[in-house]
Amino acid sequence: MLSFLLALLQTAVPASSDALPADWRAIPDDEVVVMTLADGGRVVIRLAAGRAAGHVANIRKLAVKKWWDAGGSVYRVQDNYVAQWGDVTEKKPLPADVEANPPAEYEWQGEAPVAKLTRRDPYAEWAGYTRDGWPLAGSGASQWLPHCYGMVGVARDLAPSTGSGGDLYAVIGHGPRALDRNIAVVGRVVEGIERLSALPRGTGDLGFYKAPAETPMAIRSVRLASQMPAAERPRFQYRATDNPRFAAWIKTRENRQPPFFVVPAGGADICNAMPPVRRAPPVTADAAR
Amino acid sequence: MLSFLLALLQTAVPASSDALPADWRAIPDDEVVVMTLADGGRVVIRLAAGRAAGHVANIRKLAVKKWWDAGGSVYRVQDNYVAQWGDVTEKKPLPADVEANPPAEYEWQGEAPVAKLTRRDPYAEWAGYTRDGWPLAGSGASQWLPHCYGMVGVARDLAPSTGSGGDLYAVIGHGPRALDRNIAVVGRVVEGIERLSALPRGTGDLGFYKAPAETPMAIRSVRLASQMPAAERPRFQYRATDNPRFAAWIKTRENRQPPFFVVPAGGADICNAMPPVRRAPPVTADAAR
Repeated sequence: MLSFLLALLQTAVPASSDALPADWRAIPDDEVVVMTLADGGRVVIRLAAGRAAGHVANIRKLAVKKWWDAGGSVYRVQDNYVAQWGDVTEKKPLPADVEANPPAEYEWQGEAPVAKLTRRDPYAEWAGYTRDGWPLAGSGASQWLPHCYGMVGVARDLAPSTGSGGDLYAVIGHGPRALDRNIAVVGRVVEGIERLSALPRGTGDLGFYKAPAETPMAIRSVRLASQMPAAERPRFQYRATDNPRFAAWIKTRENRQPPFFVVPAGGADICNAMPPVRRAPPVTADAAR
Repeated sequence: MLSFLLALLQTAVPASSDALPADWRAIPDDEVVVMTLADGGRVVIRLAAGRAAGHVANIRKLAVKKWWDAGGSVYRVQDNYVAQWGDVTEKKPLPADVEANPPAEYEWQGEAPVAKLTRRDPYAEWAGYTRDGWPLAGSGASQWLPHCYGMVGVARDLAPSTGSGGDLYAVIGHGPRALDRNIAVVGRVVEGIERLSALPRGTGDLGFYKAPAETPMAIRSVRLASQMPAAERPRFQYRATDNPRFAAWIKTRENRQPPFFVVPAGGADICNAMPPVRRAPPVTADAAR
């Protein structure tokens, strides 16, 4: 039962769906958030710049002010749903320039997808991709970021609260798409999601850790990459979606390949066809010359 | 950010979508498999009796013969995909009456859904429910069990291998529906999925644990409930799907309720609308009289 799996690894051959080097584009340092947990685990999040602007601005301010460093924790882990972090006391004051409830930019108009999946999904008339490497869903005139595995949203109280961004969650189960358009999606975990998804589940209501036997995982620090010394910044790239190679890649996700897959699906769920993001490869002597 | 969540718990009021006592029907003891891990964690699986019959028969035989008890382990945990268990050595002989490769009953004909979701999904023309409380997907004349969170499948080598059932996996991430119709789905974890989903991820290829730093989680025992002393058997019930209360329940999954949800989706993914299963409530003195 192992051999087939390992054999599959050897079937990767260059194909029309492969990216060219120029298809990989740098993610700016001020879109990259590095959260380090007390156990040393590192979770790297790409912020969805240009969407949910008020919430993204808040998160940048909170990182710059090191707001999560003192007392922040991952305090709720609910199986097949979310891991949530921030201020479990609900009492820590926000910095003066952080808005408690930014406008509810849960959906917007006028952003056409650069590429689309073949089939509609149950939560949107279409699902596809933005130019800058985000999954996107839409119905009628509206578009939004879908709640897929690893996507990051802003915990909130009942409306009209939209949440400040001080408490965030990452999806660690089947994409809870019913949350789409009901909450601000602000980013995506691009590295280290397993540091959240493999945490013990809380046994309290909704996965809250239940004292005294269960304790939240403390947050050591949260930083924007742009705050870190240049040599220490993790550098990431997204795969550009505006080219025929990406269109071919979509088809490979919709019709998985033999020899393991015998019946192709003819379609895919956006959460099973997430746009690729990777660590920037080291600059070689040749390229730097 | 906590208060809203706790407040939500108090919004549960009887509704037309609530089950009547008679809607809960017993799951037979020979459909219930109890896997106990070395750390004491218990994972309970309902077998999909009547589907993938050769594989389900093998699993029953392997449990009765205690095949997994000596040397069995959870040896592969791949984030956002599966936790897999069985014989990591690939060398343990199967009992003589266990077929190494039963027929590939990955899909079948003639099973009409008792209830359906409103919208199609990207992997099937329709998604819905069987009479006995399973999720079901279908296209054309075919039906199959979808790869949703918690569903259990049979690891296999390249076709024509179908796997014996000695190595199994449970889905611990976004439903990898591309596997539908390509592999035998034999059950669903009905309790204790978090004992698998919160295991450390393996850092080897495909989530295999990498020696010597990482070690598989040993399996202490695997038993059919029908093998256990009557007093020790866990008893489960599925919610019947053939009644208007269940139809109303589907609508509540497709249109989540205020006050937290403001924009209803109008549809749901079958993996976000899994048919309810629960522990049988204790028999009260009244009922037993």
